[in-house]
Order: sequence, then structure tokens, then C-alpha cells
Amino acid sequence: MNQKIRWLRNKLSSLNMQGMIVSNPINIRYLTNINAEGILLITRKENIYITDGRYMEYVQSILTISDEIIVYDINDVSPDDCENFFMFCENVGFEETYVTYAKYKEYMHRFRINNLAETEFLIEKQRMIKDEEEIKNVSTACEITDKCYEYILNYIKPGMTERHIASKINEFYNENAEGTSFETIVASGENTSKPHAIPTDRQIQPEDIITIDMGCKYNGYCSDMTRTFFVGSIPEYVKPVYDLVLKNQMQTIDDVRDGASGKLITKMVENDFKLNNFCMVHSLGHGVGLEIHEFPYFSYKNDFIMKENMIITDEPGIYIPQKFGIRIEDTLLVTKFGCISLTKSDKNYIII
Amino acid sequence: MNQKIRWLRNKLSSLNMQGMIVSNPINIRYLTNINAEGILLITRKENIYITDGRYMEYVQSILTISDEIIVYDINDVSPDDCENFFMFCENVGFEETYVTYAKYKEYMHRFRINNLAETEFLIEKQRMIKDEEEIKNVSTACEITDKCYEYILNYIKPGMTERHIASKINEFYNENAEGTSFETIVASGENTSKPHAIPTDRQIQPEDIITIDMGCKYNGYCSDMTRTFFVGSIPEYVKPVYDLVLKNQMQTIDDVRDGASGKLITKMVENDFKLNNFCMVHSLGHGVGLEIHEFPYFSYKNDFIMKENMIITDEPGIYIPQKFGIRIEDTLLVTKFGCISLTKSDKNYIII
Repeated sequence: MNQKIRWLRNKLSSLNMQGMIVSNPINIRYLTNINAEGILLITRKENIYITDGRYMEYVQSILTISDEIIVYDINDVSPDDCENFFMFCENVGFEETYVTYAKYKEYMHRFRINNLAETEFLIEKQRMIKDEEEIKNVSTACEITDKCYEYILNYIKPGMTERHIASKINEFYNENAEGTSFETIVASGENTSKPHAIPTDRQIQPEDIITIDMGCKYNGYCSDMTRTFFVGSIPEYVKPVYDLVLKNQMQTIDDVRDGASGKLITKMVENDFKLNNFCMVHSLGHGVGLEIHEFPYFSYKNDFIMKENMIITDEPGIYIPQKFGIRIEDTLLVTKFGCISLTKSDKNYIII
Repeated sequence: MNQKIRWLRNKLSSLNMQGMIVSNPINIRYLTNINAEGILLITRKENIYITDGRYMEYVQSILTISDEIIVYDINDVSPDDCENFFMFCENVGFEETYVTYAKYKEYMHRFRINNLAETEFLIEKQRMIKDEEEIKNVSTACEITDKCYEYILNYIKPGMTERHIASKINEFYNENAEGTSFETIVASGENTSKPHAIPTDRQIQPEDIITIDMGCKYNGYCSDMTRTFFVGSIPEYVKPVYDLVLKNQMQTIDDVRDGASGKLITKMVENDFKLNNFCMVHSLGHGVGLEIHEFPYFSYKNDFIMKENMIITDEPGIYIPQKFGIRIEDTLLVTKFGCISLTKSDKNYIII
């Protein structure tokens, strides 16, 4: 049996659960490497993956005998089979934050489950700590992102639209990776004041500010990086804001390490912003892995303690409505005594 | 108040629901044109959209006073406000197939709801019938897809990989539309036997079969088209399979019209496949709109009766494991006396 499923079985056992229905395709991919539509049943004695005709060939090509996963075509599973899968199971776990209310009712009925028990992000929380292969995948996605940024800095010229630039980034990622890990943000001028700007037909001006938030996927794993840079020159009134964001972004890199508190780091940045009359409109960062946003999440409400081999972003931003915004973001690997920035593009003032 | 929300209010009223929580962002976009993260509350007297700091500027820029939607930043909504929104509401609708079990519990508690009532795809079913603007958007997405197909037919040369071709299609869509409406499928040789093939590094051979399943978005609305074509020549053993698929695809176009039965049309195709010793491994088609797969779904289990201004796909396919597959697909607009194929690319044998 593969190591991740073995870990899950031990964990379920410690929670007095005799089985689990895994429905979230990202969790299934994490546990089995299968990237398809289906559900994974962890029953008393077996691991069962149920999919449909469209994926049978593909799934068979992914698994080996040592995975110990039995694959069924949903059309070959009878109502009786369903009722037997979890026979003698007192508690069966499910993903209450993924499974819809309608599906919950369907599972209860179809699998005749005694108690469908909430698992409170059991698998998602295990996914926070990356193994060597996962770290390699994120690192490679970050390397490709650095190359893409270098490429796009050389490519951008006044007159081009935000959408055109975004599509060039997407094209680069389609050619050199598995596409983007989220919708690329290219914001220019006053559009930079919107943290989640959607690229528009606005043309780059001879004196302009540009924010690009970009990332790609490699073997399913994501990268995430933001840079803010300038065309022609940097307006004097922008510099102190840029400096303040960069200072806090770098301070965070200094502070991130095994044992550090996400809440404390967030509070430090928020306080420094407040001292300068700015507020923090979005979180300082989030975990990155098979999903672009995953555990852990920086917050000043809920704390999390950083652990070795977590991968998180560090992305402070300041936004002045209708005027401009600055965000600078790296993807960081937490280590025992500090952190390593996996995205390495220059963060000094860049003028193109 | 906008027409779609007015329709929803009347419908809720007829179901003895005094309010609804709309959480599915696609449904929110359909009702309000807002494309962001947030929830829409239809309360006794008001329409309320709750979002967060990231989207406030954008949302304000989308809405006009005549929409009659009050926008709140989630940080300005107190627990008391939440408890008051649905005061005196006996039944409040929710989207049980979208809302997770955890969210369901949270809504009940946060909004102090008496009875959170299942709405059984109320909005999704209304979305089946497109208005004029929606039809225009899908038509434009289909036109762009026809152009993309023409472009890619001229572009493909032996030696190119499936992934490279897919990335060229994506690039075209990024430049000429709002990107793809689903992950482009480019399958060649024996990979065509997988209905949901993911583009690989397989190179196109001098004598090859290629299936491309492609679509883009325009103003949020999707297109969907598949063509199977050949490099160099068509093997004789492939022709009867191609002809059988095409015959059924064309027959379906003849049969689709206001009042036709989806179940009956499916059964006809399935029977013809069976007579020729092939089976139907996937559905004959599905609705297309803001989502690439939406109501109605062709099925021989559940019937649906076609109505004027539905937009559906017609995509029979035959797959011979480890050998090859053929799929031909158009996006169709249902009219009173027949249907109009919105994708118009040639379906005769094409050899490049």
C-alpha cells in the first residue's frame, strides 16, 4: 500500500473511524496520483476507487499492483455492493467542507452508513507538509515562473493591453508548464488598486505602474509570484509605498521558519502598515501545493505554527483606491532555521 | 430590480419560500452579472450581496441603482445583521447541490434560519433557456471556435506534439476570447481511444488520426466543438466507424427541436451503435452556457423535453480501446422547428 494511504488509515483508526469516503479530487490525487473523476473508498480491508467509462483506461495506466487500489467502473457496482462496502463500520469519515449537502444525504443512503463523521480537513492538513518530490515539483513551477517573468519584462511595450500581456504569460506557461495555476493578473495604472484585477483592454502608458500576479503548474503542483514594476520612471509618491511593502515582505522572509507563528508575523506587518496609515485588505499569505490556495492560511484571527517543509506565500500589498496599488509576493519553503524563497526574481525597483 | 431576480422572487414565492441564499458564483453571475466571490441574499424586502475588500471596487463598478442590490463588505456585517436578514422567514431556499455540508450548518447557525429548504436546481433549470444576449454570447464563442479550428488545421504538421498543438489552441483563445471553456483535448493515434485524453508529448505521425475537443469563453459564455481528422490518408478500417458516428451526429441535428425528447434521441443513437457492435460510453450531449456542462443532460435514464432557446451539444463518440476513437460534436441552438448548429466547421473527411 502506498505510504500516504497507510498514513490515512492510521489516522482514521486513531479517530475511531473504520473507513472514509474521499471525494475531493485533489485529495484523491494526493493519496493515489489519480487525476480523474471518481471517489476513493477506504473500507475496513480495501482501498476502492470508483470511476466511470471515460477514465478506466487512464486509471489502470496510473496504478500498479503495489498501490493496492481496486478500480471499479461505476456501472459495474450494484446497489448491494454499495451497501456492503462499509458494513460493520461504526463511523465513516467524509469531507464535510467538500461534500455538498445533497451528496451527504446520497452517501448516507447509498452506502447505508451508520454515522458519516466530519474529518475536519484531515487530509488537507497532512498536505501542508510536503515530501521531497512535492518540493521538487513546486520548485520547478517557481523556476518556470521566474523565467516567465524575465521573458515578459523584455516583452512588454507601451501600447500593449493588459489582456494581451496576460495571454502571452499564459502562452509561455502552456508551452513550458501545465498552464497557469490561477488566472493571471496583469493590472496597470489605477487598475493596480484592485487586488484581484481581471486583465482589461487598457493599454500600457509610457509612464505606468504594472502589477503582475502569476503562477503555473508542474506535475500538478503550483507556483505563485507577484511583482510590481514601472514603465519609464517611478513617481516619487509611489516610492515610499513600494518601500514599505518591500520592507515588510523581506521582514516576513526573515521571520518565517519552523516554529514561527503565522498570527504574530501577520500582526507585525499589519501594525507597520497602520503606523503608516494603510490597512491590510487581504491576508499575508497562504499554503501552495496541489492547490494554489491551501493550508496553512496567514491570519491574525487564527494562528498556525510553521513547520519544516511547509510551502507558503508571502504577499503583503497596499492599495489606494482609484490611484494605485503595490503587491510583492514570493513562494517560500519553510526550513528548520529559516526559509528559502523558491521564486527568485528581482524585487528592487524595476523600470522598463 | 433586474428581470432575472424578479423572476427568482416570484418563483420562490410560489414555493412558499420567503428568501434564498444564493452561493453558487455562476448562479450569482447569471442573476446579477457580478463575477466575484461572495453570496447573494434574497431577503423579504432586499437583495443583498456580501463580498470582501478585494472585490468592493469591482462590484460597485458593475452594479447600477436600478439593480436594487445592496453591497456589503463582509467585515461590516455584524452577527446581529446576519440574524436579522431572514427574520420572519419560515423557509429560506439554498443550493443543496452546491453548498457543502459544513456551509449548510454554518448558514443555519449564522443566519438563524428556521428551515433551510432545498431548491432542486431552481436557478440552474431557469438557466437552460437562454435570452437573446446569452445566445449572442454563445454564438460568438462558437464563431471564434470555428476560426480557431481553421487556424489549427493549417498549423498542424507531423512531428508536433499534442501538448504543443493544445497550447497553440489555448493561445488563440487567450488572444481572441476569454481563454478556453475547458481543458483543450488534443489526442492522436491510439490516444484518441480515450474520450477524456489529456494532451501528451506524443508526436503527430505522417499517417495519423487526431481528435480535438475545444471551446472558448465569450462574456463568460462557453462554446464546445469536437472534430476528428486525419494526416496523410484515412485507413479503410476507420471509415465505417467515422461514417457511423457522423450519421448519428447528423441524425441528432435533424431530430433536435422544441418538444423533442432527449431520452428518445439518445436511445436511437445507442441502438444504432449496438446494431454495429459498439457501445455508448458517454452521454450524447449536455447544455452549454455560463458553464461548459450544465442542464439539460442527454440521458436514456432521465428524460428532458427540449425547449426553444436551449443550447446543447450533440457529441456521439465511438472508442476502440488501444486502437482509435471518433467523436464529432457541435453546439446547437434549439428552435421551434429544428435546430441551428452554432459551430459550423466541416465534418466531411478531412485529411491534412
